[in-house]
Amino acid sequence: MFTFTLKTSSRVQFLNITSEIRRAIAEIGLKEGTALVYVPHTTAGITINEAADPSVVSDINRKLSQLIPVEGAYRHTEGNSDAHIKASLMGSSIQVIVTGGNLVLGEWQGIFFCEFDGPRTRKTIVKTTSD
Amino acid sequence: MFTFTLKTSSRVQFLNITSEIRRAIAEIGLKEGTALVYVPHTTAGITINEAADPSVVSDINRKLSQLIPVEGAYRHTEGNSDAHIKASLMGSSIQVIVTGGNLVLGEWQGIFFCEFDGPRTRKTIVKTTSD
Amino acid sequence: MFTFTLKTSSRVQFLNITSEIRRAIAEIGLKEGTALVYVPHTTAGITINEAADPSVVSDINRKLSQLIPVEGAYRHTEGNSDAHIKASLMGSSIQVIVTGGNLVLGEWQGIFFCEFDGPRTRKTIVKTTSD
Repeated sequence: MFTFTLKTSSRVQFLNITSEIRRAIAEIGLKEGTALVYVPHTTAGITINEAADPSVVSDINRKLSQLIPVEGAYRHTEGNSDAHIKASLMGSSIQVIVTGGNLVLGEWQGIFFCEFDGPRTRKTIVKTTSD
Repeated sequence: MFTFTLKTSSRVQFLNITSEIRRAIAEIGLKEGTALVYVPHTTAGITINEAADPSVVSDINRKLSQLIPVEGAYRHTEGNSDAHIKASLMGSSIQVIVTGGNLVLGEWQGIFFCEFDGPRTRKTIVKTTSD
Repeated sequence: MFTFTLKTSSRVQFLNITSEIRRAIAEIGLKEGTALVYVPHTTAGITINEAADPSVVSDINRKLSQLIPVEGAYRHTEGNSDAHIKASLMGSSIQVIVTGGNLVLGEWQGIFFCEFDGPRTRKTIVKTTSD
């Protein structure tokens, strides 16, 4: 189990953490198996999507904010119900395959930490399962 | 593999099943590894979100019902297309890390069974992978 | 790790790939454990939902297209931002339990590849973890 910290810089933000995941897998020393990347927060999520053009994740982020606005008829009084809802839509973990010590990702794929109630200091946990 | 049954009491409902998952992991005897929590239904899902204030999951539930109303131009004739759609948005499984026999959850996190077409008797399956 | 190819025939399409997953698990020879089914694309996803009535997945597909239209104020200029957003909502992988060499699915469940920017030739990767 490997935990790393990251700092987000705005309220909503998708951060490419692919290189951090690669580092965690190298640190753990996994050669063949799978890695669970887990976000221990309730107003942040994680997703895999295109890493080449940053417009892609900004489009995801803005469409989520359009469907789930900050303001609304929410009961939770902390002003971040939108963030909790988006977190469940993206999910709290992703899984990736590791072979030969390398992440098996599609050509365009990257792993993104989804901040929905920043800026904050956040944690991400990588837990590997070896073949 | 450990299966438990739960009863939901309304059409849409988020049930905190964290203690049931803890019990399942104790029963299985997993000390170090991961647990897959799987929902074998198509009108229910599972998610991880805040367990402290119950308003959080009621906000998620109500926003989903606003985006995906019961009534609509659906082709499936059983009157529960909304439930199927919500189930795919939340997902049919979550994964958690276990260390020292304990669930690794963030401070505010709980595991919620998402009923979208209740009340019903439902099942949840816990399958662990040991290090 | 087992990879198979599939061809989609329209822009948006949910393909039942349950039998392909069964074949992959038989090919790998997994008897007891879990299988990660991973989609290495950024405009396609994967979900588990009802396989009995094809109207169910067509309802999911059409509701997603209604919430996230092809046309919109997107920054990504390839005309497929909607596909990227839907991919993150469905997710890039699912996990299933295998016991006695068989998939543990609920009575109505099937595994669906979600094409959001076809028609294309696509890949799906099955990676198993044995008990």
